[in-house]
Amino acid sequence: MIDGAMQPYALTLDKVLDHAAKWHPRAEVVTAREDGQTIRIGYADLADRSRRVSGVLQNLGAGFGMRIATLAWNSQAHVEAWYAIMGMGAVCHTLNPRLHADQIAWMLDRSGARILIVSADLLPLARQVAERATAVERLLVIDGEAPESAAGRPAVLQLEPLLGACQDRPAWGQFDETSPCGLCFTSGTTGAPKGVTFTHRSSFLHAQRLLQVDAMAVSGADSVLAVVPMFHANAWGLPFAVPAAGGKLVLPGRHNDGTSLARLIRAEGVTTAVGVPTVWLGLLEHLEATGADVPTLKRIVVGGAPMPSALMARLETRLGVRVQTTWGMTELSPSGTVTPLGDAVRPAANSGRPALGIDLLITDPEGRPLPQQRNAEGSLRVRGAAVVERYFGEKATALDADGWFDTGDLARIDEAGNLIITGRAKDLIKSGGEWINPVEIEAVVGALPQVSLAAVIGRLDAKWGERPILLVELRDAGEVSNETLLAPLRGRVAPWWIPDAVVRLPSMPLAATGKIDKIRLRAEYGGATP
Amino acid sequence: MIDGAMQPYALTLDKVLDHAAKWHPRAEVVTAREDGQTIRIGYADLADRSRRVSGVLQNLGAGFGMRIATLAWNSQAHVEAWYAIMGMGAVCHTLNPRLHADQIAWMLDRSGARILIVSADLLPLARQVAERATAVERLLVIDGEAPESAAGRPAVLQLEPLLGACQDRPAWGQFDETSPCGLCFTSGTTGAPKGVTFTHRSSFLHAQRLLQVDAMAVSGADSVLAVVPMFHANAWGLPFAVPAAGGKLVLPGRHNDGTSLARLIRAEGVTTAVGVPTVWLGLLEHLEATGADVPTLKRIVVGGAPMPSALMARLETRLGVRVQTTWGMTELSPSGTVTPLGDAVRPAANSGRPALGIDLLITDPEGRPLPQQRNAEGSLRVRGAAVVERYFGEKATALDADGWFDTGDLARIDEAGNLIITGRAKDLIKSGGEWINPVEIEAVVGALPQVSLAAVIGRLDAKWGERPILLVELRDAGEVSNETLLAPLRGRVAPWWIPDAVVRLPSMPLAATGKIDKIRLRAEYGGATP
Repeated sequence: MIDGAMQPYALTLDKVLDHAAKWHPRAEVVTAREDGQTIRIGYADLADRSRRVSGVLQNLGAGFGMRIATLAWNSQAHVEAWYAIMGMGAVCHTLNPRLHADQIAWMLDRSGARILIVSADLLPLARQVAERATAVERLLVIDGEAPESAAGRPAVLQLEPLLGACQDRPAWGQFDETSPCGLCFTSGTTGAPKGVTFTHRSSFLHAQRLLQVDAMAVSGADSVLAVVPMFHANAWGLPFAVPAAGGKLVLPGRHNDGTSLARLIRAEGVTTAVGVPTVWLGLLEHLEATGADVPTLKRIVVGGAPMPSALMARLETRLGVRVQTTWGMTELSPSGTVTPLGDAVRPAANSGRPALGIDLLITDPEGRPLPQQRNAEGSLRVRGAAVVERYFGEKATALDADGWFDTGDLARIDEAGNLIITGRAKDLIKSGGEWINPVEIEAVVGALPQVSLAAVIGRLDAKWGERPILLVELRDAGEVSNETLLAPLRGRVAPWWIPDAVVRLPSMPLAATGKIDKIRLRAEYGGATP
Repeated sequence: MIDGAMQPYALTLDKVLDHAAKWHPRAEVVTAREDGQTIRIGYADLADRSRRVSGVLQNLGAGFGMRIATLAWNSQAHVEAWYAIMGMGAVCHTLNPRLHADQIAWMLDRSGARILIVSADLLPLARQVAERATAVERLLVIDGEAPESAAGRPAVLQLEPLLGACQDRPAWGQFDETSPCGLCFTSGTTGAPKGVTFTHRSSFLHAQRLLQVDAMAVSGADSVLAVVPMFHANAWGLPFAVPAAGGKLVLPGRHNDGTSLARLIRAEGVTTAVGVPTVWLGLLEHLEATGADVPTLKRIVVGGAPMPSALMARLETRLGVRVQTTWGMTELSPSGTVTPLGDAVRPAANSGRPALGIDLLITDPEGRPLPQQRNAEGSLRVRGAAVVERYFGEKATALDADGWFDTGDLARIDEAGNLIITGRAKDLIKSGGEWINPVEIEAVVGALPQVSLAAVIGRLDAKWGERPILLVELRDAGEVSNETLLAPLRGRVAPWWIPDAVVRLPSMPLAATGKIDKIRLRAEYGGATP
């Protein structure tokens, strides 16, 4: 009692929206609706509505520590649901509507959510899910009206009338900052989905990290288009970071096509657009086809998949924007690295550097740090306040003995400290005792104009253990010889890296997040040749 | 054990320097020495030296929780001492060399530091201090050599030879993030000095807040001149924030005159300069006198005293920089508000807005929130993770019943959320039961070309309780009538606000931080007229 003290100040997410409401009351959240109209609300009003949504949820039996699920697009109502759930100390379990009903039900069974908040247009899917996930007692409909025939089990309730009748505003916060606030299952492209439990502390610190100049650099003067979905990896933390800065948050609803996004960017003066590379290809092609412009747009933040350098160059030249590459994963809340806007040279293959609050380590496969951390490829491990320690429902730690989380990625760090992801450890092919990295082969074949998507997997082989085979989805129906596909590899990879076989697929199987589904490819094509 | 968890990751300051060393190993700390030369070191080497300074301190008996004092200018060695002390869990008690030896000794007696790290040129002062503060056992000299006659008590040791011989690198961190890391006594311009104990958590979160785009916006591409002293209010957190971002940290040593600063800015490509307004007046006058330029300088961050709008306009016009006004106090670690760089209109009287992590409240004198938080003057209260809860050595909280810290400032918040400090509650004069705010009178008189410094205090008055009197330091020796000084007040303040008397002082008494010492003025001139 003689040393003095600083204030107790729990890092809880209710403070984020309250800060926005108090200091940026009229800064807006804008949502593109299905009917082509936009709706808008200031943070002060949004905070009040969110508190009353908490009231509705409380009246439905929700409380601290309980899971409440959402199956919805990026919208004002979804943001309100997040803060309503998290503010009262419940846990927001976001579900990906692009998954199969069985997969969603599997996740819901694990989280035990009894209330599922659902976009009106996703109600049919939600019903299928609820048939399988028997814990779900209520579907609470947002973003549109449930059809008349909404009776039955589980009960279907419309949020808006309940909200109109509710003046209850349960207290927010007032719990420990390490309380869980969110749950999201990984995409499972390289294994069974695993649940990551976010805490108030981790998401608060993650948001503060994003606001740094050399990270996502969101300012109160920005209008930020969040294309990256709220149902996956927290929409990269934007529903926290943008209100925290007092910026305008622009939400595209269900539609991510170039036409819709261009219209939204122009109408809302979007300065910063955030999403996966393919989305921006769509925008670019729309603008090229129509000759239209997006003059307010200053930068595009990409991540979630490798950024093709040709696309990056086209975007920067055609749109006059700066592209910021990033790297992250659900287990990191999800941001790991960002290329600072101020960097003069920003190659597309670079994913940027970690800001204070997260650290990276390059190790050998057993987790021993490589003696040289620069310019050496190895296993990428991560540490930080917003990095998973233990998956949902697991008793064992996800960390190694030194407290690092193994991302499963292969990477190197260049002289200037930039991260370059070079592959996935699980995708490596072991042939005759030596490793083959499919990413290097895919990059060469994937750059061919005839190829739309390319994947290389290992096929069981009696002599070598595994041998690489190439699977391609071609751009046009025309004939392309194996030699055309494989010849560019000669001289660029070791001769024994060249695939033994080529399989042409009418359409490449993709996982729900848009990544190539290598698990399925391996299941179908990875067995020994009969 | 079924919910999953994010990583434990204590927010301790060792992580800041380790982050800088790992991700920005060659970014530099540059120090201007007494001899006009500069010395420089990269963060990787600085981190190693700091660890070995911890080793030296440990060998001298220092350990977790112990106070170690510093009496030094802004220099590399002072930065190393900070991290060495804080990294091992000791508490860095910074002392202001502009105070009297008695005052410094009083503070040292309270903290009980046994080791005092001292700049060579401050050794005479340190000896006077140590004669009075008997707990001090050792003076450890940095930034120059102690004279030969350094024997006696307390022992005078030179750091550099000890460091050269020391290969011990004690473990850093590994303690609770709420452990104390620093101690600084307030300037005491309005009362007895009070000690503020900073914690690792509070200083880490404060540094992260400064890095936000709409706060201090320090980037890895910046070269930051920290004129604001490390012995006062943590040099506004720059010794944490600049390494955290990987920027260059430029330290002026003892000399803050315009000539020295201009040379340093040019030589080190300074982009961002941080200090109190008077320092920039010195720089401006030097540049105007010599016709020289500082082309790399993009912005000047000011705080610690009101920014005259004429000076702000001159700086922006003459130097082509943007001036960012701020407000803070030792009790806030010290940053409270910052005017975002992106603001189109930035009046000098505005101090900007709080970033996520700190909150402001305008109340009546009893702490009841004003119903309108905008455009209403009241008592300014603050809440946040880097705001004092309890002063050093105190048992009682410094907070009100709702958990807010009363800053003692009077303020209002404009429509856009900008803080405008309007006075100090303790400086208010109560005349005939009504309040007079001296700041408003001082602003009018202080703007007169003949006036260098103006202060208004209350003088005891048999009839009215108190009546205002004006004290001035004139710019030149020439005659200036009372009427010349008081006439501009008519029509701008209430007639009964006009001071009853004018006192001309050859030199205004200043406290050690450069603020007008109103305590002394009140003691000398505040009694009833005889």
